[in-house]
Amino acid sequence: MTLIVKKYGGSSLSSVAKLRNIAKTTHDLHHNSNQKIVVVLSAMGSSTDKLVDLSIRAVKDANKRDYDMLLSSGEQVSIAMLSMLINDLGGRAIPLTGWQAGIKTDSSHANARIKSINTKRIKAELRKNNIVVIAGFQGITSEDNISTLGRGGSDTTAVALAAALKADECHIFTDVDGVYTTDPRICSKARRLDLLTYEEMLEMSGLGSKVLQLRSVEFASKYNVPIRVLDAHKNNALGTLITKEEKKMEGAIISGIAFTKDEAEIMIKGVKDQPGVAAKILGPIGTAKIEIDMIVQNVGSNGLADFTFTVSRNTLKNAIKVIENNKKSMGYSSFDTKNNIVKVSLIGVGMRSHAGIASKMFKCLAKNKVNIRMISTSEIKISVVIDQKNLEIAVQALHNEFKLDKK
Amino acid sequence: MTLIVKKYGGSSLSSVAKLRNIAKTTHDLHHNSNQKIVVVLSAMGSSTDKLVDLSIRAVKDANKRDYDMLLSSGEQVSIAMLSMLINDLGGRAIPLTGWQAGIKTDSSHANARIKSINTKRIKAELRKNNIVVIAGFQGITSEDNISTLGRGGSDTTAVALAAALKADECHIFTDVDGVYTTDPRICSKARRLDLLTYEEMLEMSGLGSKVLQLRSVEFASKYNVPIRVLDAHKNNALGTLITKEEKKMEGAIISGIAFTKDEAEIMIKGVKDQPGVAAKILGPIGTAKIEIDMIVQNVGSNGLADFTFTVSRNTLKNAIKVIENNKKSMGYSSFDTKNNIVKVSLIGVGMRSHAGIASKMFKCLAKNKVNIRMISTSEIKISVVIDQKNLEIAVQALHNEFKLDKK
Repeated sequence: MTLIVKKYGGSSLSSVAKLRNIAKTTHDLHHNSNQKIVVVLSAMGSSTDKLVDLSIRAVKDANKRDYDMLLSSGEQVSIAMLSMLINDLGGRAIPLTGWQAGIKTDSSHANARIKSINTKRIKAELRKNNIVVIAGFQGITSEDNISTLGRGGSDTTAVALAAALKADECHIFTDVDGVYTTDPRICSKARRLDLLTYEEMLEMSGLGSKVLQLRSVEFASKYNVPIRVLDAHKNNALGTLITKEEKKMEGAIISGIAFTKDEAEIMIKGVKDQPGVAAKILGPIGTAKIEIDMIVQNVGSNGLADFTFTVSRNTLKNAIKVIENNKKSMGYSSFDTKNNIVKVSLIGVGMRSHAGIASKMFKCLAKNKVNIRMISTSEIKISVVIDQKNLEIAVQALHNEFKLDKK
Repeated sequence: MTLIVKKYGGSSLSSVAKLRNIAKTTHDLHHNSNQKIVVVLSAMGSSTDKLVDLSIRAVKDANKRDYDMLLSSGEQVSIAMLSMLINDLGGRAIPLTGWQAGIKTDSSHANARIKSINTKRIKAELRKNNIVVIAGFQGITSEDNISTLGRGGSDTTAVALAAALKADECHIFTDVDGVYTTDPRICSKARRLDLLTYEEMLEMSGLGSKVLQLRSVEFASKYNVPIRVLDAHKNNALGTLITKEEKKMEGAIISGIAFTKDEAEIMIKGVKDQPGVAAKILGPIGTAKIEIDMIVQNVGSNGLADFTFTVSRNTLKNAIKVIENNKKSMGYSSFDTKNNIVKVSLIGVGMRSHAGIASKMFKCLAKNKVNIRMISTSEIKISVVIDQKNLEIAVQALHNEFKLDKK
């Protein structure tokens, strides 16, 4: 007897027709196999946006507890509808809201974290041979108030339920049929990956492959829940299985190429090369709640250093203000900013045991006349900042160089 | 310290602007007085209709438990919004769904009855000086499934909460400023009543004055909860207070004139005047789930009787079919039906101690050339069936005759 948790996002639920398809697939699977099935749903289509809009029209800064009460009604509609459709097909389904499913969270309304899941009710419904249709994205605080997990939280709900129920796999249905070696819109040779480790997926999502929510992958990694990313519109596809490393096949060194386009670079010039200078510069930036991504410091022969870092492009203006206002304490001579840059990252757990990946990457970029502005490396990732105009050529060249189009 | 339960229906909640008005009124009252306030809300505007429509587009005959899950999301939106607006004004409000408010019902989904209310959470919130904003129309079954009370159930929620919390009054805000002696569209002299007994109101609502839901008045009568019907769009109005009889002022014999226009009459002729004949005729009608209102039997000198009763106009066709199919067992010679009839009722607890009301009523109708087709009486009500064309003249004449335009 296997237990599968299946999660469908809002765009797979944007019409009654789409819901009916999911009802049919789920009912057929339940009817024709020995599987126990838990389905986790987001709100239908753009209904969450509509609820957000309603609150914006009412107040500027909504009470977060009230806001959670408002938003959580969205998933209540979708679980009721799917359960109705399955029951109408002669199937057996029961809809459960977050609190009914025993999902307890902390009290950080609008951005709550799951603390525990009391699976008693879910297990009782599964024993009754019901398909259990659960509202994603929501739970209940210890004060018995409804909470939400923040945008994309339904992925986390699904993985957390899979962990708590010791499910065999957690299937995340999306608009794509799996995780790709890179974005097919940038590189036509991009290929769907059969297998990926949690760590690789974390680097992929963190860097902008928007298939899975970061928190859900962390959760899956922590509790060792195999996640399968699948296309909501195709039946019987294999998708991409995300799991822990030992299951990974031999051979693949690089799994994929991720990139982010919303970066901006700030170069602070002529700071003294002495302990504490990084803190002096980054302190006020952090206080202003501006997130910093890559940081590079290089020392010139004159005892002065250049200090370069990247921020999200939409925070650049704010960052400039902070730097100008703190000239004295930061102690620099001048600074430059650059908007049109991108970050390209090579990702793969195989890097750990294979030397020379970085130099192969840099040579490939050089051969293609792509100038590297910044470099940063981790155990399973090498990131470079380059001019935005070189994005496509860099991704395509690296994809070829590391033969990512071949298994 | 007084405690007031205030209930607003869907049409008073059809826009953010209307909600904002209610938020302001409620916050001001809470802020400037020593009152504890519980607010009960229906779903906003036509949102329940939209949810019903969504379910109809999906399935023909929805699972009622799923249907309740769907519909109950509507009040969740309105309580979240009102609480948000009150909190935004600097007030203190907390939204509670049916289950959070401790409203336990039986398991008759889509038409559940409140069994008990655990007021612990509500009382705790009131002690914290919160305005408690509660979702009407919904509760939770002993199996922890969400239930709804059926259309108009928010009135019942409000009265049940007022009873459980021993509230001083239950204010029902509607589109009218109170209960009238009769429909002002039929009789321009119709006057708002200051005071009415539960029994009179029951006869009024049962007969088609659609101000309050019947069940809520029964509930109020059982637990002696004073109800005040008020205009949602006017502040500081008095409305109509509905309460038990001893509080009623002296003097008023007749409180109002109610009427229903959706009646049809069926006359079964030539049945034997012997025990059991009523059961023989009405049995098959009841089996077909057709509701019968008035019944009159009169015996002719030939030992045969005519048996006349009224049904709802939209069930007449069905009733005719049943009568035709059961000619043998019913044992009649022929039957007639009449569509264009109405029922007009004089209502007042004063009838109990005042003789001659009926004859005064019949004389008045005769003087105005209104022919009476059927008569039925109860302790506090006299109903007559007349031709539809005489409705206005009858109501106006009776209104004048019993001086209902004067206090």
